[in-house]
Amino acid sequence: MEQILQLSYALDTFYFLVSGALVMWMAAGFAMLEAGLVRAKNTTEILAKNVGLFAIACIMYMLVGYNIMYPGEAVSSWFPGISFLLGGDNEVAAVIAGGDDAPYYSGMSDFFFQVVFVATAMSVVSGAVAERMKLMSFFVFAIVFTGFIYPMEGYWKWGGGFLDGLGFLDFAGSGIVHMAGAAAALAGVLLLGARKGKYGPDGESRAIPGANLPLATLGTFILWLGWFGFNGGSELKVSNVEEANAVAMVFVNTLMAAAGGVIGAIIASKVKFGKIDLTMMLNGALAGLVAITAEPLTPSALAATLIGLAGGIIVVISILVIDTKLKIDDPVGAISVHGVVGLFGLIAVTFTNGDSSIGSQLIGAAVIFAWVFITSLIVWGILKAIMGIRISEEEEYEGADQSECGMEAYPEFTK
Amino acid sequence: MEQILQLSYALDTFYFLVSGALVMWMAAGFAMLEAGLVRAKNTTEILAKNVGLFAIACIMYMLVGYNIMYPGEAVSSWFPGISFLLGGDNEVAAVIAGGDDAPYYSGMSDFFFQVVFVATAMSVVSGAVAERMKLMSFFVFAIVFTGFIYPMEGYWKWGGGFLDGLGFLDFAGSGIVHMAGAAAALAGVLLLGARKGKYGPDGESRAIPGANLPLATLGTFILWLGWFGFNGGSELKVSNVEEANAVAMVFVNTLMAAAGGVIGAIIASKVKFGKIDLTMMLNGALAGLVAITAEPLTPSALAATLIGLAGGIIVVISILVIDTKLKIDDPVGAISVHGVVGLFGLIAVTFTNGDSSIGSQLIGAAVIFAWVFITSLIVWGILKAIMGIRISEEEEYEGADQSECGMEAYPEFTK
Amino acid sequence: MEQILQLSYALDTFYFLVSGALVMWMAAGFAMLEAGLVRAKNTTEILAKNVGLFAIACIMYMLVGYNIMYPGEAVSSWFPGISFLLGGDNEVAAVIAGGDDAPYYSGMSDFFFQVVFVATAMSVVSGAVAERMKLMSFFVFAIVFTGFIYPMEGYWKWGGGFLDGLGFLDFAGSGIVHMAGAAAALAGVLLLGARKGKYGPDGESRAIPGANLPLATLGTFILWLGWFGFNGGSELKVSNVEEANAVAMVFVNTLMAAAGGVIGAIIASKVKFGKIDLTMMLNGALAGLVAITAEPLTPSALAATLIGLAGGIIVVISILVIDTKLKIDDPVGAISVHGVVGLFGLIAVTFTNGDSSIGSQLIGAAVIFAWVFITSLIVWGILKAIMGIRISEEEEYEGADQSECGMEAYPEFTK
Repeated sequence: MEQILQLSYALDTFYFLVSGALVMWMAAGFAMLEAGLVRAKNTTEILAKNVGLFAIACIMYMLVGYNIMYPGEAVSSWFPGISFLLGGDNEVAAVIAGGDDAPYYSGMSDFFFQVVFVATAMSVVSGAVAERMKLMSFFVFAIVFTGFIYPMEGYWKWGGGFLDGLGFLDFAGSGIVHMAGAAAALAGVLLLGARKGKYGPDGESRAIPGANLPLATLGTFILWLGWFGFNGGSELKVSNVEEANAVAMVFVNTLMAAAGGVIGAIIASKVKFGKIDLTMMLNGALAGLVAITAEPLTPSALAATLIGLAGGIIVVISILVIDTKLKIDDPVGAISVHGVVGLFGLIAVTFTNGDSSIGSQLIGAAVIFAWVFITSLIVWGILKAIMGIRISEEEEYEGADQSECGMEAYPEFTK
Repeated sequence: MEQILQLSYALDTFYFLVSGALVMWMAAGFAMLEAGLVRAKNTTEILAKNVGLFAIACIMYMLVGYNIMYPGEAVSSWFPGISFLLGGDNEVAAVIAGGDDAPYYSGMSDFFFQVVFVATAMSVVSGAVAERMKLMSFFVFAIVFTGFIYPMEGYWKWGGGFLDGLGFLDFAGSGIVHMAGAAAALAGVLLLGARKGKYGPDGESRAIPGANLPLATLGTFILWLGWFGFNGGSELKVSNVEEANAVAMVFVNTLMAAAGGVIGAIIASKVKFGKIDLTMMLNGALAGLVAITAEPLTPSALAATLIGLAGGIIVVISILVIDTKLKIDDPVGAISVHGVVGLFGLIAVTFTNGDSSIGSQLIGAAVIFAWVFITSLIVWGILKAIMGIRISEEEEYEGADQSECGMEAYPEFTK
Repeated sequence: MEQILQLSYALDTFYFLVSGALVMWMAAGFAMLEAGLVRAKNTTEILAKNVGLFAIACIMYMLVGYNIMYPGEAVSSWFPGISFLLGGDNEVAAVIAGGDDAPYYSGMSDFFFQVVFVATAMSVVSGAVAERMKLMSFFVFAIVFTGFIYPMEGYWKWGGGFLDGLGFLDFAGSGIVHMAGAAAALAGVLLLGARKGKYGPDGESRAIPGANLPLATLGTFILWLGWFGFNGGSELKVSNVEEANAVAMVFVNTLMAAAGGVIGAIIASKVKFGKIDLTMMLNGALAGLVAITAEPLTPSALAATLIGLAGGIIVVISILVIDTKLKIDDPVGAISVHGVVGLFGLIAVTFTNGDSSIGSQLIGAAVIFAWVFITSLIVWGILKAIMGIRISEEEEYEGADQSECGMEAYPEFTK
């Protein structure tokens, strides 16, 4: 008997670690997606952003964030407290030991799984501010976001705070992770302004094509794969029949929603442009994934496909509206994919999950958005005042690669 | 005791899901391989093909294909019947509940594993028709192939149809998946004709180099990795000593066959060209993998290496013969890798598996090839008549990227 | 009870196979990293090197290496003997059956895990000798290294030889794998000399930028992911609470060390160059990973971060010293990342593991380095005398792609 428990513990731990490794892989996906969608002259810089933010996210979440998000003894359902000692493994272990679910799998595997989530949220930001933001300012923002902004709202739901008490449902983070990242991105983009030349003298939006579409496609496939860990691991247990069935359902629905998203984007882009727009297909796949993330368990495979399909249509419309009507310059469409569709995902929970209510979902969405957007706006604002957040006009013309990193991404292919 | 069964169920389900995720990853491998081997001006289009076909495959197999391939109550060993209701999760679950093996793992995990296989079969097609086919026609073909053509022959063997009764053996699909994809590709290529400029005025074959070999190499490594799921998962069970040993043996043989394939291609290309041809090495690795797929369990590691090595030599010869003698234009060598070597794989089963017979293997190969080739020819033919399957000469000159997708893959690198 | 053991066996085997698949994936990581860091004209050749060495490593280790490294009955703690019959599966199985730990998981899964390690060691070499070595000479060296040189020193520690008896500790191979690869690389580089034009008339070092930094970044992320298998699998067991906790700890520390390495490299490159050097960040991540590999279990997450951070600083200094002071031309920094930091990793064991001693670690490092360096020097020397190891000056000017492979990697992107 005791041996069965040990084995069950081992299997759940291993499942967490494999899932976490898949989510870690999403960092590569974001890096490739964004590097493919920017111009050659800003590629090194966005790669540096992605590698750097991942490192920062891991360290800040270990030192601070994880303790905030899953506090040993919370002060209130709004404020988890900061009584923890900074740093290190023992604190993290102690925190976990206090959790209800701790005994059935390794706490370290839980940390591993959680820490790669915070990196995902931060990755959403880098694409939207591409081609014009100072690298060091971005890194400083990453420190605050991953150490404090994200863990606070994470605590409110997944750490057992007031959003959880309210009945707000968000299985793997359409809101907590993706919309949160998009809210931080939006705040940054509003303070940053559009790229030079993005809008013409009459305010018309100009397409700025990405330099390397195979890379962007690769990034999308990586994210698609990683998402099986993202959603599949969020079931948090696999070691009995019921849980194994649930994890399998989540895998299938994650797959189908992405497929639906691609089809939705094909339809929308064929209708709108008369051609099949590859970047819209990629955004469609991601939109399908974001849409299903808040509830990948209760829909049937067909329903998941339709939710994804809706996400794929929404994302095409959203990208066009944000780009041409609102004139917000988001080079990779991150605000649409993760923000607008993230919100849709939170609402879509109510389509199939009887325990959800549209009220709770909207309150949750509003709280997360308001918290992340306002705190981010403050942080970006302070950074703008102190060290600046935008590279100079000349640097932007030459490319962020030269000014920020001193090296070209493709020295032999361009010019 | 009951807990042990639950745990065993969970482990087998998890093993299925991990294997399926690896096979899903192969979609990225095909996309990168093919994108690397075409010219820059046709890269966006082939990426769109690969992303789109994967989405179509998932949806069609869910709605139709899975029900055909694994019918609840088959009409006959030739015809599974179409009494199932279209669509959705309950039907799929019901189908599985009828299977013999269902109780020991999640049916949804089985669906997940199967659905990524159909995408693999379809991925074989896209490379062969590259650089000249209309994107929408390709997608329509994908609908029919993944919903109907592939599932029928899949039923005949893996669904328990007449090929299974005949003693035809195909562990993970050298024939059912790879040769089937190649047969569909061949039918398309024959109706499509060669690329403009591929054959000179005297019929001499001209090399058309791929634009991005690192991408092609990456694609090959992705496929190599994904194949551990493809073959390893096809053992269908891992949860006891015997099965675990079998899965491990399959992993080793899959690895060794690919290694053998590389060496075979090095030898063949060194002999033939005096140089070590990278694209042949890549095709050699894939050929080794295709060759071992029909029987990765019974060979020793050494035998697997030799089977792979033979595959690597065969593929080099086959590519040359098909290209220069038969004058069939297959830009990525898909017909050789998956078709010719797929057939060799079916025959190679008899080298080490005492339960096989050369007669059954050849009958199975003939049935699969005839079924897929003829039905594909009909579908491609109808498409040709109704909507056309080939882009115009001018579009081909400008590149399929512009005509089909309206965007370049590498706007800053070329011209 | 017996069923529990079976299930435990299955879980450990599956854990080995998943870990091994992740390590196999590192081959793709090295290929992309190196392909991204060389010039366009030498890209096909380095891809061919990476694909070819992986195939050679698998086959040689199966035929010879594994039998040397894990002998059935060793002659002495220095010399494992060569009484084994060459080749094949039965021998390999017999070898394993003799091991102490064999009964609890599939021997084939152990082989699978071990064989991808030898490929990793060999991959270290290819980067350092890039852009000027003859491909066939490299392959011949790979045969000797993977079949004989690496397995011998592997035997001395992991096979139970004299270094193991000495108390030398190397959890997953900072020394046995990474420093060994670097030692072989150093020997080759010394006989080979610098690339044409690398050092100016006054001996000043000239930067030769890599052609494709997204590819190099992708390669680094692949390696980062694969390292979870490399270190995580080296715990060798996961199926009870204690082991599962250990594996989870190893995953976390592997993650954190890489993160620390990135930060270390950011700091060092910002101080040194005033910019954030992307290639140094990538080398920093890898340095963090190499540094933690000798002992990823006993450090806390914070300690692992600091060990990685130290590795990231060391690697930047080492690359500069080797390049500009010692004037050893190592195009990708492999000798610094794997050699210098590998040595640091062996020493870092003593920071957190009470069972280690600095004396044993240094003796182990010296023995491994001396063995690999001297034998490699002999082999490279013989190759130089017999077939030459360097391409001609003209070939180097034209690029190794033309002379060795007869095809360009990016025919449309460059001139």
